[in-house]
Amino acid sequence: MSPVTAKATGLPVVGMVGGGQLARMTHQAAISLGLSLHVLADHPDDGAALVTPDVEIGSASDAAAVERFAKSCDVVTFDHEHVPNDLIASLTAAGVTMRPGASALRYAQDKRAMRRRLGELGVPMPKWSDDPRSLPRPYVAKAVRGGYDGRGVWIVGEGDPLPDGDVIVEEKVTIVHELAVQVARTPSGRSRCWPVVETVQENGICVEVVAPAPRLSHSLTAEAQALAVRIAEELDVVGVLAVELFEAPSGLLVNELAMRPHNSGHWSIEGATTSQFEQHLRAVLDWPLGDTRTRAPFTVMVNLLGGPSTDLSTSLPAALEAVPGGSVHLYGKAARPGRKLGHVTVLGDDLEEIRAQARKAVEVLRGDAS
Amino acid sequence: MSPVTAKATGLPVVGMVGGGQLARMTHQAAISLGLSLHVLADHPDDGAALVTPDVEIGSASDAAAVERFAKSCDVVTFDHEHVPNDLIASLTAAGVTMRPGASALRYAQDKRAMRRRLGELGVPMPKWSDDPRSLPRPYVAKAVRGGYDGRGVWIVGEGDPLPDGDVIVEEKVTIVHELAVQVARTPSGRSRCWPVVETVQENGICVEVVAPAPRLSHSLTAEAQALAVRIAEELDVVGVLAVELFEAPSGLLVNELAMRPHNSGHWSIEGATTSQFEQHLRAVLDWPLGDTRTRAPFTVMVNLLGGPSTDLSTSLPAALEAVPGGSVHLYGKAARPGRKLGHVTVLGDDLEEIRAQARKAVEVLRGDAS
Repeated sequence: MSPVTAKATGLPVVGMVGGGQLARMTHQAAISLGLSLHVLADHPDDGAALVTPDVEIGSASDAAAVERFAKSCDVVTFDHEHVPNDLIASLTAAGVTMRPGASALRYAQDKRAMRRRLGELGVPMPKWSDDPRSLPRPYVAKAVRGGYDGRGVWIVGEGDPLPDGDVIVEEKVTIVHELAVQVARTPSGRSRCWPVVETVQENGICVEVVAPAPRLSHSLTAEAQALAVRIAEELDVVGVLAVELFEAPSGLLVNELAMRPHNSGHWSIEGATTSQFEQHLRAVLDWPLGDTRTRAPFTVMVNLLGGPSTDLSTSLPAALEAVPGGSVHLYGKAARPGRKLGHVTVLGDDLEEIRAQARKAVEVLRGDAS
Repeated sequence: MSPVTAKATGLPVVGMVGGGQLARMTHQAAISLGLSLHVLADHPDDGAALVTPDVEIGSASDAAAVERFAKSCDVVTFDHEHVPNDLIASLTAAGVTMRPGASALRYAQDKRAMRRRLGELGVPMPKWSDDPRSLPRPYVAKAVRGGYDGRGVWIVGEGDPLPDGDVIVEEKVTIVHELAVQVARTPSGRSRCWPVVETVQENGICVEVVAPAPRLSHSLTAEAQALAVRIAEELDVVGVLAVELFEAPSGLLVNELAMRPHNSGHWSIEGATTSQFEQHLRAVLDWPLGDTRTRAPFTVMVNLLGGPSTDLSTSLPAALEAVPGGSVHLYGKAARPGRKLGHVTVLGDDLEEIRAQARKAVEVLRGDAS
């Protein structure tokens, strides 16, 4: 690798594989730090490719494209889990700095490897198996690789056929609340957690996040944060780790891991002193981590999934009018029903009021009848 | 003008003439609104040109360059006052939407015109004259055009020669505090003020801003905001108007006007629900304005003027380490002594503590001996 530095400032060049909304919001954070994110995007109209000048077009699974891109950067990180693990390992061996590394990312790419490793660590999680016949129905089937936003996860009930493909199965636990906790960790081993958040899922897709989780005890909050820090350390994660959790009657159970900025952390752009996007950059650069304190008693983030309106040029001003206190984030995508187009964040003291405001803004953006 | 819209979203294209830090931070705000700022920059390494893909290189005084750029945008606005007023007027006549318009911008471009107009409106301001011999010395001489950051403003004392060039002169008033207030106004005539801030100047350059002004009475706060709204209306300003004020023993006096995002409003990125950059975009698009409430009892912004260190790659991590609660903004410039390289913002309850933190971060970034 020939180190490249930003022309004027001498600051390092951070590259992100994947040009979606996570890269888009990371670029916003990079600008504040005097950086400009380099992006390897699938398409020129990917969310990040539309707003940053240093874009290569190429697939995350095209070894030559990833290699060419990576060698133009001082540090490479990821906006998704779809870069082949052996490619990350071979580029690392060739001297490219990839963060997080292949040995950590494996556990975000392969659910079987993740369950095995968390089991070895004694981390609480749902009962799971490689053998669909070993769990009572209904159970949850999960594709070992490639699932996200509800895809690759389904419930197998009494009359259903055995799940196909490379899957693991997990007990269907009783969920009191769904939670998430994020931690950022540097190569030097320093880490900082954000508050634990409560997430609301519909059809396997996160629709709403409340920070901090309003109904979580102090002891479970501390336990969740300690779990996140321990997983980050044991798996040698660098950057942001999101740990999705179930609060079950028996206590906390780890559901999923993501090793990148994550939808459950979008609230932190306005709601925390340091956002997950800035913190991810700091972490992969091995720079000191920022304060993660909240800026308000509550922050609510509601996802914008495309609705009846496909004309943002009228629905956006209408939403700004309806909710003057909302922070709208659009990802540069054409509006289509069900597509994740953006999110809205509202901060305040009164959780019910700000939740209503954030939902209202999203309803107007979607064009839902009021 | 042939209207152009962003490819996927159908949202309008906003162009900004000038590629400096104001355009850079406006681009960050534009990304959240689903937009991507188009920029006409003097140089490819201007702060905004480094971080946005839609850049034209050309001078703000090159009529052909400005015209070509303007016709590729739905709305054109400005990051400085140096576009010739008659060019703005002729492009407007040709159907380009320029905001603010030539008739308003004139008062931000020509200090004599500004003083005359404010005089007609009965706005309180320092005594002034076209004739340097009509005021007792010492007085303040100001270049009618082109001054900023202390350039084009000087004190004329007893032994000094008469000021040269096209100048106006103003009485040297006793300043209790320096203040600024910003208001955003839409073409539809809606406006919203931010809290009045106190500014600290050194050698004519703003070095520090505290929001809200901690030592200002309620009545003077209300008077300053009412003045800003009235000036915006009378001058038909569209976008953000910054009014710099002196608090003198006799009351408020208007010092300067700027019709764009302004250094005195950088605190609003973190410190207010809607930043001056997002609000400027909303205003020039005639979209509803956002809430301007503060997010903390106090916000302090300290400017980073280049110091002994010219190596941000070591001074930036050191500053992040020293002040984990600081929000650092770098403008993508090479560090040189005295150059405005960025700013640091800290929010909190304890003004003295956050002021010390923001100053500390800037000292470390500058490489000042501690």
